[in-house]
Amino acid sequence: MRPFNFSAGPAMLPEAVMRQAQSEFLDWQGTGMSVMEVSHRSPEFMALAHHMEATLREIMQIPDNYKVLLTHGGASLQFAGVPLNLAQQGDVVDYLNTGVWSTKAIKEASRYAQVNVVAKADTTIPDFESWQLSDNAKYLHICSNETITGVEFQEEPAVSVPLIADMSSNILSRPIDVSKYGVIYAGAQKNIGPAGLAIVIVREDLIGQARTETPTLMNWQTYAENESMFNTPATYSWYLASLVFDWIKEQGGLQVMAEVNQRKAARLYEVIDQSELYVNKVDPRYRSRMNVTFTTQDDELDKQFIAEAKAAGLLSLKGHKVFGGMRASIYNAMPEEGVIALAEFMQQFEQTHRKAG
Amino acid sequence: MRPFNFSAGPAMLPEAVMRQAQSEFLDWQGTGMSVMEVSHRSPEFMALAHHMEATLREIMQIPDNYKVLLTHGGASLQFAGVPLNLAQQGDVVDYLNTGVWSTKAIKEASRYAQVNVVAKADTTIPDFESWQLSDNAKYLHICSNETITGVEFQEEPAVSVPLIADMSSNILSRPIDVSKYGVIYAGAQKNIGPAGLAIVIVREDLIGQARTETPTLMNWQTYAENESMFNTPATYSWYLASLVFDWIKEQGGLQVMAEVNQRKAARLYEVIDQSELYVNKVDPRYRSRMNVTFTTQDDELDKQFIAEAKAAGLLSLKGHKVFGGMRASIYNAMPEEGVIALAEFMQQFEQTHRKAG
Repeated sequence: MRPFNFSAGPAMLPEAVMRQAQSEFLDWQGTGMSVMEVSHRSPEFMALAHHMEATLREIMQIPDNYKVLLTHGGASLQFAGVPLNLAQQGDVVDYLNTGVWSTKAIKEASRYAQVNVVAKADTTIPDFESWQLSDNAKYLHICSNETITGVEFQEEPAVSVPLIADMSSNILSRPIDVSKYGVIYAGAQKNIGPAGLAIVIVREDLIGQARTETPTLMNWQTYAENESMFNTPATYSWYLASLVFDWIKEQGGLQVMAEVNQRKAARLYEVIDQSELYVNKVDPRYRSRMNVTFTTQDDELDKQFIAEAKAAGLLSLKGHKVFGGMRASIYNAMPEEGVIALAEFMQQFEQTHRKAG
Repeated sequence: MRPFNFSAGPAMLPEAVMRQAQSEFLDWQGTGMSVMEVSHRSPEFMALAHHMEATLREIMQIPDNYKVLLTHGGASLQFAGVPLNLAQQGDVVDYLNTGVWSTKAIKEASRYAQVNVVAKADTTIPDFESWQLSDNAKYLHICSNETITGVEFQEEPAVSVPLIADMSSNILSRPIDVSKYGVIYAGAQKNIGPAGLAIVIVREDLIGQARTETPTLMNWQTYAENESMFNTPATYSWYLASLVFDWIKEQGGLQVMAEVNQRKAARLYEVIDQSELYVNKVDPRYRSRMNVTFTTQDDELDKQFIAEAKAAGLLSLKGHKVFGGMRASIYNAMPEEGVIALAEFMQQFEQTHRKAG
């Protein structure tokens, strides 16, 4: 058995996907070539690209008036891409700040537009009533799951301007209503595939407004008009993403993913809440189903936890340096067995390291 | 035996590299994880990153005053990256136009600076004496190998401004004197690794001049200051690139690569020149060692050649649509056996399809 890898990203991929990719690594579909050695314009690869998009549209139920773009550079390049495609210099854009990733998006957007931060919080989602929305914003940007603290939106805010979501760390984890969004974007390295790829799902009427200085390969129109093949795409990442989409469909789609993810997260939060050792600092209403953070509130004991967990085959549990403690990232690919094993380990660790007093 | 894959890119990778990657696909260095599932900030991956850069510096003999950056998006994103990092709006920049890839670079640069085309040709490198260099250019840009027609620089032009080279399709194919360049950039998908990654080798004094609107992830300074890890890099592509650099070193380095590549190209041009059927349209002084183009000058016969070659295990020989005919891309990973097999096939095909008259 492989150890369980709780890395926040790059993160584990489904074992079935990895085994298939390994088996056809040198000879893809009888071509005698690896899929990464095949021209992106070949009929075989074009068929893969079309299959991938069709499967993603099916599992996410993406409406016909949305384009699916596969872009270079991960979600971080879209921190500039969003304002470059949707706002002119001087335009007002609204951003909600719920943590480190929101802050990065805000910092980059501030170079291109007048950013209004509608509300700010670290370990919760501020109540919608408290948001200071602009009258004239071109869009509202949110991060639907803050990976570092483990704070997750539970439902979309109802706003009149296009809602833009960085969904890097919870895309494909549950069904969402795409039609409530103007743009959804996500880096691949959590729930999609290898790092270095991003997916941008954009309502068609929001394409074609990029400001003049937008680099051609950051202009969504370039991707929309060229099936994301204006230049050579990251073909191997596309291939693995396609296998992941197939796997999700085979598992029963996003409703099944959501049920499994809900059970996985609930198991860990249950252990934490029943514990006298572990603390989760996030507002319980907005706890993430993808990134479960916890700490013993004792740095040395946290280190010991991480080391002993690693020895037990529970890997990459160290929290992000800005938040400390532990973080169990339990994306789609983490099997329930991994979460059960972690829950048991947490309970055993508490028994042997019970706090004094 | 695998068939021989003459794809122009994504192109074949060394078989030894592919076999190693396959063998450790699910368990990299005893971590129990695939390298693509490991955090880019982990000690194991950081060691890989440092090893990769050190190996590249060694085989290319990159001077200490040059930074090696691993960027997102392939070479095409650098078509904007070069002017954004090196010129202000209105500055004059010199470009040599030797074909399709030069033209693409010029088109994108024209959006950011005043481009002066110093000379233009399709199937040769214009004589240096004929170049109309600007007095005040910020740099001179060349494409060191035009993949589509198969035209290759043989030595660097001596200019007083920084020389910028798109070396996507001949980097690592022979020793070059890096110190003659201001910037060398290359997409990975020919001689480096999988598509979606680019390498930018830049003299340190050319970093830090990016214009204000440059997206953070297109600013070379961002990469230079963060070991190319400002955001999550394309870790699996880095890993394969590192294996390819190791492989080149094991083969004896770039001098050995150059000798093998010279023999490979010479063999094919010899068949073409001795033939009464095949024609290569490139100025013999500037024939590419990487992309050998030829045609029977009969579209139907070209199609037949491509089909029969495929049946014989010689794949992806169709030329680019803008140039037609055939193209054998024989990058580092193409073994001499592949070229010998192609040469023999060409001679046999000529015998059975000799021109009338």
